[in-house]
Amino acid sequence: MKIDLKENERIDDLDIKDYKIIQHKEKFCFGMDAVLLSNFVKATKKDRVIDLGTGTGVIPILLEAKEKGSEFVAVEVQEESADMARRSVALNDLSDKIDVVCMDLKEASNHFGKAVFDVVTTNPPYMTMKGGLKNPNEAKAIARHEILCTLSDVIKASTNLLKPGGRLFMVHRPNRLPEIFEELKANNMGAKRIQFVYPYAGAKANMLLIEAVRGAKPEFNVMEALIIYNEKGEYTSQVLEIYGK
Amino acid sequence: MKIDLKENERIDDLDIKDYKIIQHKEKFCFGMDAVLLSNFVKATKKDRVIDLGTGTGVIPILLEAKEKGSEFVAVEVQEESADMARRSVALNDLSDKIDVVCMDLKEASNHFGKAVFDVVTTNPPYMTMKGGLKNPNEAKAIARHEILCTLSDVIKASTNLLKPGGRLFMVHRPNRLPEIFEELKANNMGAKRIQFVYPYAGAKANMLLIEAVRGAKPEFNVMEALIIYNEKGEYTSQVLEIYGK
Repeated sequence: MKIDLKENERIDDLDIKDYKIIQHKEKFCFGMDAVLLSNFVKATKKDRVIDLGTGTGVIPILLEAKEKGSEFVAVEVQEESADMARRSVALNDLSDKIDVVCMDLKEASNHFGKAVFDVVTTNPPYMTMKGGLKNPNEAKAIARHEILCTLSDVIKASTNLLKPGGRLFMVHRPNRLPEIFEELKANNMGAKRIQFVYPYAGAKANMLLIEAVRGAKPEFNVMEALIIYNEKGEYTSQVLEIYGK
Repeated sequence: MKIDLKENERIDDLDIKDYKIIQHKEKFCFGMDAVLLSNFVKATKKDRVIDLGTGTGVIPILLEAKEKGSEFVAVEVQEESADMARRSVALNDLSDKIDVVCMDLKEASNHFGKAVFDVVTTNPPYMTMKGGLKNPNEAKAIARHEILCTLSDVIKASTNLLKPGGRLFMVHRPNRLPEIFEELKANNMGAKRIQFVYPYAGAKANMLLIEAVRGAKPEFNVMEALIIYNEKGEYTSQVLEIYGK
C-alpha cells in the first residue's frame, strides 16, 4: 500500500509479522515501554481493546500482531500523532481492525459508551506538572508530561470504559506507585499483578507494568524481576525472548 | 551471664558481635525476614526505636548490634515469647538498652505515649484469617496469622507511636501490597521505598521490605531487586554481604 510520508517522518520495522510504523524524527518515538507492555498484556482473540493515548498507534499494532484482541480502538488527543497512527494502520492493512480516533481520553466513555471494552491498555505520560514546563504545547511534552491528562484521568477513564471484570494494563514509572494504588482503589479497580523492570541487576526499578481488574479484588502478585541488561551491557535473555530473538 | 533455658529451648548464634538468641524448637524461630529487615532499617545512634511483635527479640538485638538506634522497646503479646526475649536480652547484657514489654501492640501508644519514637520496626503476622485456622491459640499461629492483630492495627499503632517524620520499617508479603498502601494512606504515612525479595531470578517476589514516613509524602523508589539464591542454589553475593560473610 502506498502511504504518504510527511516531512521528517520515517518508516520503521516492528520486527513482527512484517509490520511497520511511521514515526517522526523529532517527536515522541515508541520505546521499550510499548514493547514490554504489549508483551505483558493478556488478551484473547475475542477481546475488544481500547488503547488510551496511543501516540503513533504502536501498542494496538503490536497487540494485533500477537493476536491479543479482536478489534481495537486507539485514542489519541494530538491530531498529528493520530494521523500518523491512522497511516501506520493503513500501511499494515489493519484499517478494518484498528480504529484510530482523535479525541481526549476523558471523553472516550461518552463517545464509545460505558462498560463496553474487555481490555484497556495505556502508556500514559509519566511525569507530573510539578515545577512546570518550558514548552507545554510541544507534542513530545504532551506525550511525556501530564499536561492534557493525569494518572487519575487515565484510571477514571479506564474504569468507565471497562466491563465489570475487564482488565487494565498500564506501563508507568515506579515513583508513581503509591498514587497508582490510590487511584485504582478510588475507582474500584483491584490490582492483580505488577512486574518491575530493572535496567540492570543492582539498580533501582525504572519501569513497572501493572494489571488491574474492574470491580474485583483479585489475588495480587509481584511477578519475576525483569532485568534489561546483563553485566556486559547486553540485553538479557528475558529481553531477547520478548523481542522474539 | 548464666541464663536458665526451659524445656525445648536452645541458644543460637546471631553471627554478629557474639550475640546469641534463645529460641524454642517447636515455636516460631527467626528467619531471613528478620535479618533482611534489620539490614533494611536506616537508623542512627540517636534514634529511639520500638519493635512491634518482637517475638524472641531478634530484631532489636540485631539493630543494637548494627548500632541502629540508641534505646529499644520490644513489644510482644505472648508472655512465653516475651520471656524468651527478656532472657536473650540479658544473655547479651543488653538489659539497659532493650526493654521487653509483654503487651498488645494496640495498647502501646496508651502505655508509652503518642509520637515518642523515631523508628518503628515490625515483622508482623503475614497471613490473614480468611478460611480460619485449626489451632488459633498456638504460639506459632499467633506469630504467623492475624489472630491478635491485623495489618491495619500494626500501621495504626505505628502512626500513633511515631513522631512526625518518624519512620516505619516493615517486612511483609507482596500479596499484601495493595492493602499496605491503603493502610499507609489511611494513616497519613507516606511510602518512601520498597525492596522486593525474589527467591531466585525468574521467580515471583515472596517478601517485601518497606519504609514509610509519618505525615510526609516523600519521593518513592523501588530499590534494587534482592535475589536470594543463584542458579546453583547458593546464596547470592547480595545475601552473603547482608550476612557479613
